Amino acid sequence: MTHPFFTAHADTLNRALTAIAERTYWSAYPESPSPRVYGETAAADGQAAYQAHLGVRFAIDQPGAGDWVSTERSPFGVELNVSYPHSSVDALVDAASAALPGWRDAGPQTRVGVCLEVLHRIHQRIFELANAVQFTTGQAFVMAFQAGGAHALDRALEAVAYAYAEQTRHTATARWEKPAGKGDPLVMNKTFHVVPRGVALVIGCRTFPTWNSYPGLFASLATGNPVIVKPHPGAVLPLALTVQIAREVLAEAGFDPNLVTLAAEAPGEGIASALATRPEIKIVDFTGSTEYGDWLEDHARQAQVYTEKAGLNAIIIDSTDDFAGLCRNLAFTLSLYSGQMCTTSQNIFIPSAGIATPDGVKTFDEVAAGITGAVAKLTGDAARAVELIGAIGDERVLERIEAAGKTGETLLDSKALEHPAFPDAVVRTPVIVKLGADADAVYGDEWFGPITFLIATDDTEQSIALFRKTVGAKGGLTAGVYSTDESVLDAVERAAIDVGVHLSCNLTGGVFVNQSAAFSDFHGSGANAAANAALTDGAYVANRFRIVQSRR
Amino acid sequence: MTHPFFTAHADTLNRALTAIAERTYWSAYPESPSPRVYGETAAADGQAAYQAHLGVRFAIDQPGAGDWVSTERSPFGVELNVSYPHSSVDALVDAASAALPGWRDAGPQTRVGVCLEVLHRIHQRIFELANAVQFTTGQAFVMAFQAGGAHALDRALEAVAYAYAEQTRHTATARWEKPAGKGDPLVMNKTFHVVPRGVALVIGCRTFPTWNSYPGLFASLATGNPVIVKPHPGAVLPLALTVQIAREVLAEAGFDPNLVTLAAEAPGEGIASALATRPEIKIVDFTGSTEYGDWLEDHARQAQVYTEKAGLNAIIIDSTDDFAGLCRNLAFTLSLYSGQMCTTSQNIFIPSAGIATPDGVKTFDEVAAGITGAVAKLTGDAARAVELIGAIGDERVLERIEAAGKTGETLLDSKALEHPAFPDAVVRTPVIVKLGADADAVYGDEWFGPITFLIATDDTEQSIALFRKTVGAKGGLTAGVYSTDESVLDAVERAAIDVGVHLSCNLTGGVFVNQSAAFSDFHGSGANAAANAALTDGAYVANRFRIVQSRR
Repeated sequence: MTHPFFTAHADTLNRALTAIAERTYWSAYPESPSPRVYGETAAADGQAAYQAHLGVRFAIDQPGAGDWVSTERSPFGVELNVSYPHSSVDALVDAASAALPGWRDAGPQTRVGVCLEVLHRIHQRIFELANAVQFTTGQAFVMAFQAGGAHALDRALEAVAYAYAEQTRHTATARWEKPAGKGDPLVMNKTFHVVPRGVALVIGCRTFPTWNSYPGLFASLATGNPVIVKPHPGAVLPLALTVQIAREVLAEAGFDPNLVTLAAEAPGEGIASALATRPEIKIVDFTGSTEYGDWLEDHARQAQVYTEKAGLNAIIIDSTDDFAGLCRNLAFTLSLYSGQMCTTSQNIFIPSAGIATPDGVKTFDEVAAGITGAVAKLTGDAARAVELIGAIGDERVLERIEAAGKTGETLLDSKALEHPAFPDAVVRTPVIVKLGADADAVYGDEWFGPITFLIATDDTEQSIALFRKTVGAKGGLTAGVYSTDESVLDAVERAAIDVGVHLSCNLTGGVFVNQSAAFSDFHGSGANAAANAALTDGAYVANRFRIVQSRR
Repeated sequence: MTHPFFTAHADTLNRALTAIAERTYWSAYPESPSPRVYGETAAADGQAAYQAHLGVRFAIDQPGAGDWVSTERSPFGVELNVSYPHSSVDALVDAASAALPGWRDAGPQTRVGVCLEVLHRIHQRIFELANAVQFTTGQAFVMAFQAGGAHALDRALEAVAYAYAEQTRHTATARWEKPAGKGDPLVMNKTFHVVPRGVALVIGCRTFPTWNSYPGLFASLATGNPVIVKPHPGAVLPLALTVQIAREVLAEAGFDPNLVTLAAEAPGEGIASALATRPEIKIVDFTGSTEYGDWLEDHARQAQVYTEKAGLNAIIIDSTDDFAGLCRNLAFTLSLYSGQMCTTSQNIFIPSAGIATPDGVKTFDEVAAGITGAVAKLTGDAARAVELIGAIGDERVLERIEAAGKTGETLLDSKALEHPAFPDAVVRTPVIVKLGADADAVYGDEWFGPITFLIATDDTEQSIALFRKTVGAKGGLTAGVYSTDESVLDAVERAAIDVGVHLSCNLTGGVFVNQSAAFSDFHGSGANAAANAALTDGAYVANRFRIVQSRR
């Protein structure tokens, strides 16, 4: 009775189950968009498939769809004009609720098989998806392909593997025999049903519509919960494609396609709040602002709410045995996708007296010059720069860049670049500002975007104290430290444990503090204010279902 | 570097880890208080140890203890007069917070070793503990020994096993090597730290001070959280003994004994609310009223709150092939500990037209007579009855018995019995009342105590509908069904899954709907209003800690 989709992907699942325990390097979906990996025509075919969506109504059947909505504006300045069916909250919730029992009763194995087939088919359309991610988010193509495609699929698979492990950690049936003295033993046959919590809601973000949504989406779906996907109005297409594929696979497997629906909204409609507070909604996954994440936690009390919010990602520079590597590594992190990652470092603490390097002490200004120089070099040539920094879709990021320059001494000015291929693209290079340690009213808040503060401290001890204070108060998703002194590394590691933030030490090569590897690194910890859960661990899936038993 | 406590109990842990997955019969702590199991002098020694506590100050060192409090009044009418040190909220929270880092850094294996040693030493004092449970709760001795001793220890071990499994499901360290084309691979050494959420609070109940507190206490402690134990003022001694033993073992293992403290309170002090809303408290485990459980969920927002509250446990009688067995089985359930279990059945739905039995149709009145007759027989002889029904410590239970008799047609009156050994014991036999299906204003609320409603329904279909309605609205921890018709069993099982309640079918022998077996049955599901979590499963432990990683 094993479902053919489960059989087809059993090896992948087993490898993933090993990976989440061992946490060494593994990936299921190749991250290189090279023709050698994906074939000579894959890129062009995918681009054409993407372009076929532009200017037309998206081909998806939806419950209770009336009018159509079109809300996307590309950071690259190109026209998208894709229209999506506009369903009512009632229709979405009712359709999801009606779909639940059949999916619940299918059991973990079949559900996981269906989820893995969905991932497989998304992967078959990865170039189409990457284009959709690129032109909605403003990511450069390679990043969109990797973070929005391959890595998002890896994270989804990781969530499905946890969901499978968690649902099958107990036997599904058991014969219980209790000795009863000289008499016959007491015997009961027991069945343990996996029961989903209810209908799940995934609220996507603009910058990472797939990567940040897939873990919650697939963790909920694999554990039996119908999922309503509410994309950010600026980045609908990547999730519309995802929903389209999920519905296609579900229908093919004989399930109600309304197990996965799209909640596209009209401008200013606020459909997320209306959905999140419906009594039928029992799980909410959200990535976005602290303000709205807090609102969801306070108001969607009937649901288990998973939030990833803002934070203060920090770097402590104490000393290094590879100053050039430090500068190159940080410059990449600060420039990638114009700092529009929840993992981008914002606050870099550097002793005013400078740091020890193999060439002797570098003063604060020399360290700052090294970092700003490396960023300037990376972003100096527009044609090369745009493939790294991408484009900016959110007006508020531009406003913050302006405002940041007025908070202290600007060490590197943000420049507008002309995109060689897309003349209307909004492209800005990073701004880097020097602040004193006492300017915590500035660096104590998140400045999302290509904005970096170099903060002059009395010494590394003060750097660690400020790191504890800022991340302790506002949370953070990533932290980094550079030191040749084991005792400093240990002290920062202890501080990171205390404030619950993942720490990277002495990154000078091809691993970056703002990137986490599926199946090995955890994203977020749930141990500070930046997120109330980690992607992806046992706690992230265990509460998405319950066990209800019967014994006869 | 394996801690000797871990080595000593490794076999027990491994057997428990197998048990929680297989869920067949297993128990680590013998439930029979027989001298053949525990030795000839164990019972007398334990009783003497218990009696040595009476009338004196309990021998326990506590942070910031000033005065002493004495609040216990035995349902058996005997004097306890044990005094406990009275610590301030500040002192308890500060001491627990200070103890956290050392315990966190000890790692899962050592923590689990210490927890298992604590259980071992509690088991060595099980007769002393059973006496303490008996005289504070009003349970008869054998029940106090089993539910309050052996079974509570089994549930604690189950929680520790889950905690161990959950903390060690990932490797503690990993070497990550990512191929990088023709160049050297990218290499990172990663460490995954288990980090507790913070300080945990366990709020005990009067009726099951150990059984209901141990899973949360040991799940939190094993995952690195210091635990403040707040006993019900009426049942302090069982938890004071537990805390005393835990502190002794912690100190012996070189840890701060303030990892486990006792929050004994003065009458009317309300220390639970003051503790639960402290920012340092990150986990709360509570068993008790729906009203206070809801208050905790609404107000202790900084914490993960696990609540077990009131519910409407139901039985559906459709038909049976063993009418006498049905009556005997239900009579035991309704009588045991005077129905003062969160799992005791309250609402028994029976078709007015009667049910099919091997002797032909029994009318509603005949079914009712069978059940009331069995209860009357079980409780007819005072000397034997008190060993089953125990005593009642809560005035409100007595008031409810009075009030219940006025809600419908009383089929069996509650009687006051004289306890042969304790003349001041408050002993009452169960009251059984007949209600119409339309009396949901009565049976739609919980009537905690020895109070049973036999509800006359149109037919089994209506019984199932009323079961869905009542448990759907108010929740429930247990449900039962009697039927010889597979399709009825299936329909009730489907209803039970929909309302998230564990179901027992056709219990006529030595297994009872109000009893759950550790390592096999789940207690509560978290899938209805009676409890927001199950004891004990992955979800119950996974959120008590976080992973914080560092990579170099």
